[in-house]
Order: sequence, then C-alpha cells, then structure tokens
Amino acid sequence: MTSTDLRPRSAGGAPPIRLAARLSGIRGSAIRDLLTLTARDDVLSLAGGLPAADLMPRERIAEAAERALASPTAVQYSETAGLGRLREVVAAHETGRTGRPVGPADVVVTSGSQQALDLLARALLDPGDPVAVEDPVYVGALQVLQAAGADVHPVPLDGEGMRVDVLAARLAAGFRPRLVHTVSSFHNPRGVTLGQERRRDLAGLAERYGFLVVEDDPYGLLAFDGDPPRPVAAHGDHVVRLGSASKVLAPSLRVGWLVAPPVLAAAVERLKQSTDLCGSSLTQMITAELLADEEWFAGHVVGVRRENRGRAAALTAAVDAEFGPAVTRSTPSGGMFCWLEFADGTDTAALLPRALEQGVGFVPGGAFSVDAPVDGGALRSAARLCFATYPPDLLREAVRRLARASRRPDS
Amino acid sequence: MTSTDLRPRSAGGAPPIRLAARLSGIRGSAIRDLLTLTARDDVLSLAGGLPAADLMPRERIAEAAERALASPTAVQYSETAGLGRLREVVAAHETGRTGRPVGPADVVVTSGSQQALDLLARALLDPGDPVAVEDPVYVGALQVLQAAGADVHPVPLDGEGMRVDVLAARLAAGFRPRLVHTVSSFHNPRGVTLGQERRRDLAGLAERYGFLVVEDDPYGLLAFDGDPPRPVAAHGDHVVRLGSASKVLAPSLRVGWLVAPPVLAAAVERLKQSTDLCGSSLTQMITAELLADEEWFAGHVVGVRRENRGRAAALTAAVDAEFGPAVTRSTPSGGMFCWLEFADGTDTAALLPRALEQGVGFVPGGAFSVDAPVDGGALRSAARLCFATYPPDLLREAVRRLARASRRPDS
Repeated sequence: MTSTDLRPRSAGGAPPIRLAARLSGIRGSAIRDLLTLTARDDVLSLAGGLPAADLMPRERIAEAAERALASPTAVQYSETAGLGRLREVVAAHETGRTGRPVGPADVVVTSGSQQALDLLARALLDPGDPVAVEDPVYVGALQVLQAAGADVHPVPLDGEGMRVDVLAARLAAGFRPRLVHTVSSFHNPRGVTLGQERRRDLAGLAERYGFLVVEDDPYGLLAFDGDPPRPVAAHGDHVVRLGSASKVLAPSLRVGWLVAPPVLAAAVERLKQSTDLCGSSLTQMITAELLADEEWFAGHVVGVRRENRGRAAALTAAVDAEFGPAVTRSTPSGGMFCWLEFADGTDTAALLPRALEQGVGFVPGGAFSVDAPVDGGALRSAARLCFATYPPDLLREAVRRLARASRRPDS
Repeated sequence: MTSTDLRPRSAGGAPPIRLAARLSGIRGSAIRDLLTLTARDDVLSLAGGLPAADLMPRERIAEAAERALASPTAVQYSETAGLGRLREVVAAHETGRTGRPVGPADVVVTSGSQQALDLLARALLDPGDPVAVEDPVYVGALQVLQAAGADVHPVPLDGEGMRVDVLAARLAAGFRPRLVHTVSSFHNPRGVTLGQERRRDLAGLAERYGFLVVEDDPYGLLAFDGDPPRPVAAHGDHVVRLGSASKVLAPSLRVGWLVAPPVLAAAVERLKQSTDLCGSSLTQMITAELLADEEWFAGHVVGVRRENRGRAAALTAAVDAEFGPAVTRSTPSGGMFCWLEFADGTDTAALLPRALEQGVGFVPGGAFSVDAPVDGGALRSAARLCFATYPPDLLREAVRRLARASRRPDS
C-alpha cells in the first residue's frame, strides 16, 4: 500500500503521493471484504453483526426526535464528552450494572463503543506497548490496537471465556501489558461468557500488576435468561467499561460510551475533540429519553431478548438437523453469535465461496485469529454465524444452504 | 501528563497506569478551556465558532427524520463511506462547486469535516512527516497534525490568504511537505479569503512538488455576496476538499465529507471503519433529503447569508464606534469571524479575564499561533470575534462590554 500513486490524472515527474507507511501494520478486515460479497440480494448473510432492524423502536425514536427538535440544543454543537443529561442517565445505568458509584464525570459518550476503543487506545498506548486480547479476537479491537502500534499478545479462550489462568502465568513470568481487552459477555465471535470467578481474578490481576481491563460489553443486556452477567468492573477499579446503545436501541444513533477514572476520561475527551469535535446532540437527546424511560426500556429489552432467544433456537436446531455430528456448535445464552467447528477439519475459508454460490454468507474462523490471519491456524475449520439479523424461517433456509455447500466437493 | 497516576482508589505497590507519552505533543486547546469559562449564563461569548441555532431548519429536520424513520435503513448500521444517496448528492454538489467531475466513489462522509481531517492525517502521515499550515492556524487542524506526529511548518497569511509566494520559495529551497492545509475561504480565525491567482499557483505547486492541498471549506457557501469563491480544487488534481453540513444546515447532523482520489478515499474509509464503524444512517438520510431539495436549500442558504451579513455589519459598526482607531479590524465578506488587532499592543490574553468580568468572551490571537502558544508572538494583541452566534442587539452589547474591559487598567 505504501507506494501507491494516488495521482488520478496528472502526469509529470513529481514524486508520487503515498499513503502512510504505518497503515501497513493494520490488519485488513476479511469480514469487511466479505460483507461486500454478501450484500447481494440473493445472499442470506449470517456474516455481519447486524442486530434485527425489525425490532428497533422506530416510532419511539421518531417521537423523541420531534420532541428534541423543539429545542435549539438539538441542532447545535454539543459538549465533547456528551450531553450532560445523557451522561447522567448512563452513569445511573452503569451504577446499577456494576454496583459501584459511577458519576457523569466518569462517562464519555462516543460514536458507538468502537470510537471509545479507538480513543482509549490512542490515550493509553505508545508504539510498541504490550497489550493482551482474546484469541479468537473481536477484529475491531485488533485493528484499533494495531493502529495504535501496540504489541498484541493473544490469550486463549475456552467455554468460560478468557483463560485468565494463562494470563496470570504470563504476568508472573514478567509480562507487563498496558491493557487487556475482553468482550466479557456473549463474546464476539466465540459466544462464550467469562465466568464470575475469572472476572474476580482478572480484576485482581489488573490491580496487582497495574494494567487496565477494557471490558467491552455491548451485549450484556441481551442475556436470554434476563440476568446480565455481573461486570468485571464490579470486582475492581482497574476496569474501563465500554457500552453501547446499538444493540439495545439502534446502531444509527451512534451512541456508545466509556466509563473510566476521571483523568483518563478527560484525556479521551480531549482526543475526541480533535477527532470529531463532538457527537450529535440530536441522537444523544433521543437516546437519553429512551434510556431514562425505564419502564418502556425494560419492556423493550425483554422483547429483543425473547426474539433473539427464539432466533438462536431456530438456528441451532437447524444446524443440528442439517449437520448432526459433523459440526460442534456453541449454545448461545445471549448476544448475537453462534460458533461452529467442523469435525472433519473443513477449511471454512475455502467453504465460503461455495456457500456464497448457494446463497449464504458467514465469517470463517480464521478471520478472528490474532496471529495467523492467512491460514487461520486452529480456527480454520470454524465459522461465526449471526442469528440476530433474520427471523427463524430465513435462518433455517440459510443453514440449509450452508449444509448444501458443505456437501459439495471443492470445485 | 505522562506520569499521571490514574488509579482512583486503590493503593498497593503496582506500577501506576500512565497516559500515552505521545499525547504530550498535542497542543491543548486554549479555546476549549475558554469555552468552559464563557459558558456562564451571564457571559456573551464571541469565543465559540457556533453558527446561529435560531437560523437552523429544525422543523424541516423533524419532518425529514419522520420520513426517514419509515424505513429500517434509518436505524441500522450503514456503509462506512456513507449512505449511497448522500454520497451521490455530495458528489453532484462538489461537481458544481469545482467544475470538475466528482463521483460518489470519490466521497467519504465523515462525522463533521473535523473527522475527515483526522482520518486524512492518519492515512497520509507518518511521524516526522513535514506539513504546512497557515499561521494563524485553525487549531483543530493543528491538533490533528500534531496527533499524527507531523512536523508542522507555518506559512504566513495576509489580506489575500496564505502567502503562496513564501511557500513557493521554501519549496524551491527544498522543503517537501506531504500536505498543505488551508481554510481557503473566510478563514478561521483570520477571516481572509485566498485570492484566485494564489489558488491557481497553490494547485500548480502541489502537482509540481507532489504534495496534497487539503482545502478545508466549511464556510464557502456563506459568501455575503452570494458567490462562493471558486475552490482551489477547480485548479488541479492534487487537492482534497473537505466540506460540512454544520454551517449550512446543523452541526448536530455530524455530517461532513472529503473528496479525494479513490485510492485515498478507500484508505480513509478503512480507517473510519476501525475508528467508529460508520456514521448515522438517520442523520445522513436527513442531510441527503435537505441537500437534494435544491430550491429549498438555496433559499435557506440565502437566508443564513443575509442574516450573517447583518450580524457582521452590526458587530463591525459597534467595534468602530466603541474603539475607533484603537483597533484595526477585518471587514468580513462571509463566514463567521471578525479579527481585531489592538493598535497599542494590548496583550489580549491578559485582557480576557477582565473581559469575562465584564461579561464578554473572545479568543486571544495567541491561541491560533503555530509556534508560540505561550506568549502568542505577533498575535498577542489580536482577538477573534464570532459574529454568527447572536443577533445584532446582543453583538452590540458584547462589544460595549469588551470596550469597557479594555479601558480598565490591569487589576
């Protein structure tokens, strides 16, 4: 990429305009490239992490927008850290989740929790700083950490989330990360949830060794049984929590947040100012109204959870019926993803083009590998399926197409 | 900042959590700190660059929001580069402005043009890369370039904008910037507009020496005489244009854009994906509808221009009446800012606290200096006043308060 000549039409002998060399350290998102392929109308895509648009409260949002726009505040620039009212509502919500006092000064509202991750990495990391992530990893976190020049160390996952014992052994051996990133609940892509004892251990290690846990928690409220897992942040101070309205209200609000000690929140706020000045006062007013209407919001979340549970059940039943013992799968208990592993070692990256021919998209496991993006390493026979995007009938049809593709020999 | 201990409550012997060392290279925004002071209800603030909220089309936005929310597209994640419809509308608008063909693939929609600047700097610059900016400088650009680790070289301004002859002499002497940033029309903070011959020269230098001109143009449509200056991009290929809906519709839409060669646009799009995934489909649908309604939009802009012209006239008349020959001022022909210079060498940074006591805020000239943030250098007796925020009566009262403050001796 670094020697790309950007000049579109001019000739002459001037030196070419180049992209920054440091871009070459950032993993291209295979998912992103796939989404382009799966955007065809005839493809049922289980690849994107798209929550169900049909469950989002469009009328309620329209009403809130109209109310907000009665005030000039809804059209003007807003505070960089987010509208005061929204920070209060988020602080109250986070106090409830963590059982620890969170004040508005601890909250920075961001453009989705992805921006919180990006700003946090830029506020904390210098090039070469060591960090730890889960493997398989949320690719959006990997990209942000690579863009910040971090030295990224993978920690394996099992059925109870991050192997905190493995991390502890490395810390004892001298590993000193600046931060440890975890999607603690209903992991993307793996679907697992970090056990409560591990949460306590992780929070303790952070205090002992002086790193920050970045608890990335967009899915916590989407526990099928209705009890959001108790956050890592409930167990200690060295935890920055990232939250989002995208999965419980609507992604187009572009409202996420981080909860951090005030000095760090202030540094993030300053970076946000030079990054995009501020978020949208309009969508923040809408979000504050909807989150603050506790009775309505609780009922809405119950509805989304119930529907997602039904979708997960439809998908997993179809996987069992179509694949039987040829596939091992996770049993989703929340969130949006189901994880498959092909028993015969099928190369899912090679399966994908055949799946697209059959009209279904998914993400091959290798896309989520920290160290081996090319052949996918141990993840090469895995696949991530999103069950949230479609109603049950379409999910069943998508799985039938996937089974058809997996029975075809390589072309 | 780098040794700040972020731990809020815990004790123990763990190493403290530090902010990134590279943050120390970024100028804190004096304007930002001032805005906190001037947010008091009893202060008339001419400090912020706030367009007039009372002129923003709130009802039209509410109607467009309601129409958009009839579709699930308005709540879902959207394309990272921006909704296709909005990119088409922006491409058509930019084709008209520049007289050169601009296609949707050349456009990336960003969270205000500030995000376009930030992503562009990250896509083009490696630490140490030389760049040129105007002096006095738009502080938001300076911060972004410093955050990217650039080696920032100031080029002086005069009444016709950037001294392109000075830049040309440095280029001839071997200076090789990666990019040159200019607020070409109705400069922030200086109020001046780059002459057409200089625009042609600058575009030619960019092609000859292989750098990119970043033409930051949020104010172009706000020419009092109704003719937006012909863009630098009309004169050559090596120009990236940045535009914004903030000053002509509403900042809370958070819609800006850049127009760049497709390879660069694609790199910016990838960075945007890891930065915040995408913008808001809701506010992008609203913006597309309003920009595409050409007759309505033209009428709306005429109204904003007329009102701004009246406000500028009220402010400048008040300055002349209150200060007479004690102050030299610019004569605004568009945009939002008037620039004062005190003939007696008044230190405007020292004047500011007295002004706030009298109930008026402004930004001291030194805040816009590239090299001398502490004493302000040659800019120390200058001040930036925004005439867009208030109606004429309040502007006159603000200037009276400023005059009162300037007559008081130092306390």
